[in-house]
Amino acid sequence: MNDIQFNAQGRLKHFISIEGLNRPLLLHILKTANSFISVKQQAVKKVPLLRGKTIINLFFEPSTRTRTTFELAAKRLSADVVNFNISASSSSKGESLTDMLHNLEAMYCDMFVVRHAASGAAHFMAEHVAPHIHIVNAGDGCHEHPTQAMLDALTIQQHKGDFTTLRVAIVGDILHSRVARSLIHALNILGVPEIRVVAPKTLLPKTVEQLGVQVHYNLNRGLRDADVVVMLRLQRERMQSALLPSANEYFQQYGLTEANLALAHPNAIVMHPGPINRGVEIASAVADGPRSVILQQVSNGVAVRMAVMAMTMGAQVPQETAGNEVTH
Amino acid sequence: MNDIQFNAQGRLKHFISIEGLNRPLLLHILKTANSFISVKQQAVKKVPLLRGKTIINLFFEPSTRTRTTFELAAKRLSADVVNFNISASSSSKGESLTDMLHNLEAMYCDMFVVRHAASGAAHFMAEHVAPHIHIVNAGDGCHEHPTQAMLDALTIQQHKGDFTTLRVAIVGDILHSRVARSLIHALNILGVPEIRVVAPKTLLPKTVEQLGVQVHYNLNRGLRDADVVVMLRLQRERMQSALLPSANEYFQQYGLTEANLALAHPNAIVMHPGPINRGVEIASAVADGPRSVILQQVSNGVAVRMAVMAMTMGAQVPQETAGNEVTH
Amino acid sequence: MNDIQFNAQGRLKHFISIEGLNRPLLLHILKTANSFISVKQQAVKKVPLLRGKTIINLFFEPSTRTRTTFELAAKRLSADVVNFNISASSSSKGESLTDMLHNLEAMYCDMFVVRHAASGAAHFMAEHVAPHIHIVNAGDGCHEHPTQAMLDALTIQQHKGDFTTLRVAIVGDILHSRVARSLIHALNILGVPEIRVVAPKTLLPKTVEQLGVQVHYNLNRGLRDADVVVMLRLQRERMQSALLPSANEYFQQYGLTEANLALAHPNAIVMHPGPINRGVEIASAVADGPRSVILQQVSNGVAVRMAVMAMTMGAQVPQETAGNEVTH
Repeated sequence: MNDIQFNAQGRLKHFISIEGLNRPLLLHILKTANSFISVKQQAVKKVPLLRGKTIINLFFEPSTRTRTTFELAAKRLSADVVNFNISASSSSKGESLTDMLHNLEAMYCDMFVVRHAASGAAHFMAEHVAPHIHIVNAGDGCHEHPTQAMLDALTIQQHKGDFTTLRVAIVGDILHSRVARSLIHALNILGVPEIRVVAPKTLLPKTVEQLGVQVHYNLNRGLRDADVVVMLRLQRERMQSALLPSANEYFQQYGLTEANLALAHPNAIVMHPGPINRGVEIASAVADGPRSVILQQVSNGVAVRMAVMAMTMGAQVPQETAGNEVTH
Repeated sequence: MNDIQFNAQGRLKHFISIEGLNRPLLLHILKTANSFISVKQQAVKKVPLLRGKTIINLFFEPSTRTRTTFELAAKRLSADVVNFNISASSSSKGESLTDMLHNLEAMYCDMFVVRHAASGAAHFMAEHVAPHIHIVNAGDGCHEHPTQAMLDALTIQQHKGDFTTLRVAIVGDILHSRVARSLIHALNILGVPEIRVVAPKTLLPKTVEQLGVQVHYNLNRGLRDADVVVMLRLQRERMQSALLPSANEYFQQYGLTEANLALAHPNAIVMHPGPINRGVEIASAVADGPRSVILQQVSNGVAVRMAVMAMTMGAQVPQETAGNEVTH
Repeated sequence: MNDIQFNAQGRLKHFISIEGLNRPLLLHILKTANSFISVKQQAVKKVPLLRGKTIINLFFEPSTRTRTTFELAAKRLSADVVNFNISASSSSKGESLTDMLHNLEAMYCDMFVVRHAASGAAHFMAEHVAPHIHIVNAGDGCHEHPTQAMLDALTIQQHKGDFTTLRVAIVGDILHSRVARSLIHALNILGVPEIRVVAPKTLLPKTVEQLGVQVHYNLNRGLRDADVVVMLRLQRERMQSALLPSANEYFQQYGLTEANLALAHPNAIVMHPGPINRGVEIASAVADGPRSVILQQVSNGVAVRMAVMAMTMGAQVPQETAGNEVTH
C-alpha cells in the first residue's frame, strides 16, 4: 500500500505516513535527527546538505508551529524556502490542485511540505507529482501527521532509551487526532509492548483496538504505572458539536493533574503536541512541571524535520556531525 | 522613448517593455537564460551572481505564479528577496507611491520587481527612483509583461530554432492582454514573418494591425499551418461585462481542441501563459497533450527572470556555466 | 531598573530602552553602525557575523518600514529570518503569549524583534524568555522605540559631529510618541545641552520637563537657532479624538515650512521618523528640500539595526570593515 513512499531502490522518497514503514527505518530517522542536535543545548547546526534545493511549504490549513519548524528546518539545511498562502493563491482563479502542483514542480522545486484538511491529500499529491519531487506530509485531515510521531518517538527515546519495555498512555480525542494515529503506528513499529488509549467513548474510533492498543475509559486506570503520558489537544469545536458536555467537565474526568499523574510511574514523562489548553486537558502545574517534556518536543521537531527532509532527498548526512557542532 | 531602459553606456538597466529593444539584445537574453538551464533537466544552477544584492517584490496586484518565479529566480542568483504585500503596507497610512519608493531605495535595495494595475507604472517608477535602482516590469495594466514574452520566445526557440520562418497564431483576448502585446513586439523584433491574432472583434484593439499582425476572426483560418499556437487566458470578468456571451459559446468558437489543432502544422506547439481555464479557451486533451509546452514555459520563466535580473544589474554571466551545473 | 538589558558580565544582551544606558555604550553603537556603512554610498556590506543564527520578527502591530529594515539588517548579517504574522498565528487558538514565546525559543531561535501596542511588552518578554534568547524592542506602545533613537542620533552625528554643542527641537505629538521619548533619553545621555519640545499643551505629557527638556508652545520660538529640527508624525486619530481641531489648523500653528525653518540655524538639518504627512506636520518643500535628511535616516536605520543585532548577540564586529566594503 505505502510503497509509494519508496523509490525503485527501496530508499525513502516521500514521507507520508508511519503506517507501512519498518523499525530499522524509524530508528535510522531518530539517529539522523539526533545527529543534528548539538551536544551543547540550544543549538542545531546549520549544514549545507540541501544547498541549492527549493522547498515549498504548501499549507492549505493555517498553522504556526508546524509551518515554522519546517521552515526553520529547511533553512538550517541551507535550502531555499517559499511559503505558499493558498487562499491568496491562484486557486481563486479556478486553477485545479493538480495544475497548481504541476506549475510548482515546473519551477524547479524539489519538495512540497503539505498540510491539508483532507485525509489522503499528501498521498494524492505523491501519486501525481513529477518523479523528481518529494512530498512530506505535515498533517492530512484525521489521517496522519508522521513527523509529529517521529518527534514524539525521539523525545521518548531520549528519556527512556529502550522502547521495548514501555507503557505509553495516550489521553484525549483519539477519534479526530492524526497525531494519535501516527504515534500509535510508530510505537507499535518501535516495539512498545503496551499502548493505552484513554478517552470517552464519543472520542474513540469504533475499531480502535485494531490499531494495537488497550482501551481505557477511566483516566486513573489508564495512567497507572505508565512510563509516558501523551495528552492530546481538545479542539473546542468538539464541545460545540455535542460530543462533549463542557470543558470543565472534561477536565474533571480526563484532565491531567498532579494528583492523577502520581498514579503513573515515578519517572513518567508528560508530552503534548501543543498548543496546550491549560485547564482543559492539562493542569498548568503539570504542563510547567518537572515531568513535562513539551518544549523538548518542539525542539526535537526541528531536528526530526531536518532528518526527514535530508533523507528523502538523498542527502548524505555525516553521522559524525554530532560532536562537531558550530558554536551557537 | 524607451531609452530609459538603458544607461549612459547603452547597457540594459531596467526591463520595462519589449517595445524599443533590438534583436541582438533579445537574442542575448535568450542565450543567457539558456545558460542557466542545466543540461540535465529538472535543474537550474544556484549561482552567486547577485550575492549581497537585495531585490524587492512590489506586487500591487495579487499573483502566485509570477511572484514565485521571480522570488525563485532571485534566490537562485543568491540575492536576498523581500516580498511586499502592498495592501498591508503603510500605503494605508496615506504615504504616496513616490515616498514609498524613496524609502525602499534608502534601505539599500538594488532592484524593484513591480506588478501594478496601471499601465505605465513600471515606467513611472524608473523615472523616479534613484540612479542605483533597477526596475523590472512584472506586468503593468494592459500594457506589457516583458519577461513573459521572453519566456515564450525562449520556449519557441528551444523547439523551432529559427524565428525567421515561423507562423505564430495568438488566440483570445488580445484587447486586454499585456502578454499578447509584449509577445507581438518580441516576435516582430526576432524576425517572425507571420504573426496572426485570432479573436472576436470585441476582444481586439481597434488599431491592432499597426502592431504588425494579421487579423483573423475565424479560428480555423487562424490556425491553418501555424507552427506555434499561443492561447490566451480568458478573464471571467469579460463575460460579465457583456463583451462575450458565455464561456460555453466562446469555447465553441475560439476554444482550442484536438480537432481544430489538426489544422495547424503537424509539428505545431501549443503555448499558454497560465493559469489555464480548461474547457473555456483550451480543451484538457490539448493542454495535457503531446503538443503542449505549457509547463516548459513555466520552467523557462525562472531562467528568463534570472537572465533579466543578472543582466540589468550588470553581473558577468559566465557563458560556460551551461556545462557546469550543480547536481540536482 | 533596566539592567535586564545586560548580562552578568555587563555586556549588552537585550535592547529594550534607551533609558538606563550610558554614553560610552551609545557611542559604541554609533561607531559599530558606521562601520557597516560603506565609504561608497548606496551600500552596506553583507557580512557573515550572524550566519547560522535565527531571528524572529514578532510584530503584533502592522509595520512596513520598521519590519523591513529589521529583516534587511538581519539578512545583511547573514542570519535566517522568519516573519511572524501574529493575527494569523495560533494566538487565535487561545495560546498565551508566554506559551508562544517558549515554543519559539524551543525552536532554536536566537532573537525576537518585537513590536507591540502595549508599553512594556518587550521588557516583559525579556523577563520571561530563556537565557539564550535576545530581545530587541521595535516599538512598545507609547514607551520606547530605541533603534529609531539611535538612527536619529547617527544621522545627527554624521552631520554635526559633536553632540555637546547642539540645540535640538522636537516638534509635534510628544505625548503619544515613543520616538520622542527614546530620542530625548538618547540626546540627554549623549550630552546635548539644549533639547526643546514644541507642541500644543494637549500633546505634551504633564511632567514633560522631568525628561530634561525645555517646553515651547510656540513653534517660531522653538525653532530659533536650532541645529536640528525633528518633526513627529501626527496620527490622524488625534484629530478624531478631539485633542486637535483640524489638520489644517495644526499645520498653520505647528507645520514646518520654509518660512519658519528660516528661524533655525542656517545649517540646521530637518528630520522625521516617517512616514510623513505632507501638509500636516511638514510642507513638501521642506521634506524634499536641501535641509532634509529624512531618507538618510532610513538608510541609517538598516546600519543601526545591524549594529544592535550584532552587539546583543555578542558577534565580534571588525572595526576595520569600514574601508573594506564589497562592491555594490
